[in-house]
Amino acid sequence: MSLLNETLAAISPADAEAAAQARDRQARMTKPAGSLGVLEDLSVRLAGLAGVCPPPLPEPAAVAVFAGDHGVHAQGVTPWPQEVTGQMVANFLAGGAVVNAFATQVGASVTVVDVGVGTLPPAGDGLLDRNIRRGTRDMTVEPAMTRDEAVAAIEVGIAVARDLVAAGNRALLTGDMGIANTTASAALVAAFTGADAGAVTGAGTGVDAETLRHKTDIVRRALARHGLVGDAPAAGSATGTAPGAADPIETLAAVGGLEHAAIAGFVLGAAAERVPVILDGVIAGSSALVAAALAPACLDAAVAGHRSTEPGHGVALAHLGLTPLVDLSLRLGEGTGAVLALPLVQASVRALRDVATFDSAGVTEKQ
Amino acid sequence: MSLLNETLAAISPADAEAAAQARDRQARMTKPAGSLGVLEDLSVRLAGLAGVCPPPLPEPAAVAVFAGDHGVHAQGVTPWPQEVTGQMVANFLAGGAVVNAFATQVGASVTVVDVGVGTLPPAGDGLLDRNIRRGTRDMTVEPAMTRDEAVAAIEVGIAVARDLVAAGNRALLTGDMGIANTTASAALVAAFTGADAGAVTGAGTGVDAETLRHKTDIVRRALARHGLVGDAPAAGSATGTAPGAADPIETLAAVGGLEHAAIAGFVLGAAAERVPVILDGVIAGSSALVAAALAPACLDAAVAGHRSTEPGHGVALAHLGLTPLVDLSLRLGEGTGAVLALPLVQASVRALRDVATFDSAGVTEKQ
Repeated sequence: MSLLNETLAAISPADAEAAAQARDRQARMTKPAGSLGVLEDLSVRLAGLAGVCPPPLPEPAAVAVFAGDHGVHAQGVTPWPQEVTGQMVANFLAGGAVVNAFATQVGASVTVVDVGVGTLPPAGDGLLDRNIRRGTRDMTVEPAMTRDEAVAAIEVGIAVARDLVAAGNRALLTGDMGIANTTASAALVAAFTGADAGAVTGAGTGVDAETLRHKTDIVRRALARHGLVGDAPAAGSATGTAPGAADPIETLAAVGGLEHAAIAGFVLGAAAERVPVILDGVIAGSSALVAAALAPACLDAAVAGHRSTEPGHGVALAHLGLTPLVDLSLRLGEGTGAVLALPLVQASVRALRDVATFDSAGVTEKQ
Repeated sequence: MSLLNETLAAISPADAEAAAQARDRQARMTKPAGSLGVLEDLSVRLAGLAGVCPPPLPEPAAVAVFAGDHGVHAQGVTPWPQEVTGQMVANFLAGGAVVNAFATQVGASVTVVDVGVGTLPPAGDGLLDRNIRRGTRDMTVEPAMTRDEAVAAIEVGIAVARDLVAAGNRALLTGDMGIANTTASAALVAAFTGADAGAVTGAGTGVDAETLRHKTDIVRRALARHGLVGDAPAAGSATGTAPGAADPIETLAAVGGLEHAAIAGFVLGAAAERVPVILDGVIAGSSALVAAALAPACLDAAVAGHRSTEPGHGVALAHLGLTPLVDLSLRLGEGTGAVLALPLVQASVRALRDVATFDSAGVTEKQ
């Protein structure tokens, strides 16, 4: 059996009994019931994922930054030169990027994976060379990847997740680097939710209004080229026709990126290992749509780290039914939003593990 | 000179040059300009506060939980018995509360200060006994505190802030415990913003609709009793008449709590030391209104850790012009929301300190 099929077969739904035990414990802890809001629900989900209450603390934690280039860059969707992808990979390896700084602050490791970078400058030690091809093809002209390439990139992500868990990590975080990858993300979100290109295409790391109009047109053209135009009545609707869901890998190959494929695999791999995976921004959100189309139960392992300013991200999260933990107008990627959410995820579990109950602490309950 | 006056005299505005240097550095870091959103602005503010760019990392960090009881409890504003305040103080000292679990997770210390608890069970070691009186008076009948008591409680907060900074802490976090203290908070927010009692009174840790109506009526009655009814046209407006601002200490004494007074002092003390103070929920927000009325520049040191579900908290933050970092439907208090925000504050500074610039990393800038 292939690694992908083996992984899909290993994914099963959350344990309802462990989740119920967590819910019950939250009600007996020395605090008003429900007063931890979103973090209470999160701790219940993580107990269900682990199959035990309380679940293990999600630490140590590892960020995997998957990097790839995009053929659609040729269409002028971004003011950033393509070589910046490889330059930033070198920056990650040298510890100079924001994701490095944030990860240092919260005690997470950073693993950098070349799954599809076009050109790499001489880079520091530590790069995982898992390059499938040197950037995707231009999705407005042909499928960005072959089906085999897409599966191979998914399996890169699965293998990285497996290895990080085998190394002892108990929280995985998604990261990405790829100039033009918000264009591919927008196409994926449209294809998997049925939303219009105009509702999911955004300014990415920062483009002007004219470039945004052009970028939206490129996304629309790519969707039409591959028969992926849906009919969702409104942005974020989960009820419209989503033509991409019928054959998720074909859709991914048509308009996705190599790093999207790897992140989809990373989510599947984490779910198969029953370890939480904290999603970063729109690249992770669009990749999670692929993963969820392949194995819906993988979402039991997924935590939305944050909501970026990219409109497609909100659409993806609504479709996935995930509540973002951090919402600070970030639009950087790299895994930065996931890393910022890590202490919140850890705190939700820490409370479930450590907080006294009314009985044990001798605190009177409300009347 | 009294400790309060000395502290007020020591508070000066942020350093515009250090802030400008931080803004400039953010623009040269290897990331799209502005892509760190709220955290970019925060790092600029903290550079201005410290008077140097980059500012020191806000660690180690210390939470101070100020506990007090409230005479207005006699009016039936909460289903929780008053003795829970003291019981929870014992729980904090034993390490069994949510604030302890969260603080452990993020590496912050917890200092528990009795500034006005009614009755204390035999408690563990480590309590700072700074009790001014065993609970306030009923604000619907008479002023909750004398002016001298209010000043003494403010000075408790100042002294605790000073001592924590002297011990090496570079971030202070507010915490609170006091059954019925959302009632006093609502009255303070109304008095200092001019908002209507109905717009600022909430369910606190959880009351039913009938109790909420009664609680709102109690707040309204207290405001009327002390001549503190404003005429703000809408919730959150900063433009209405706010009768409480004319004599902030008199207003605090009339409708505040001893822990509110101490937290106001804690904010002033942090500002005088030029150390950031992360505010927790509505108790901190209402206390910060008192501090800001005494010394507007103290807000340069204040970071809004989170926004709780309490409606008065949003009104207070809008009036203070502070953007909350965490927004997860929390309504616990104790400092929990401030503690969750700590890693975000630290990350914002860490990025400013550690991230490479385009020049230093050899990364091409956008065209």
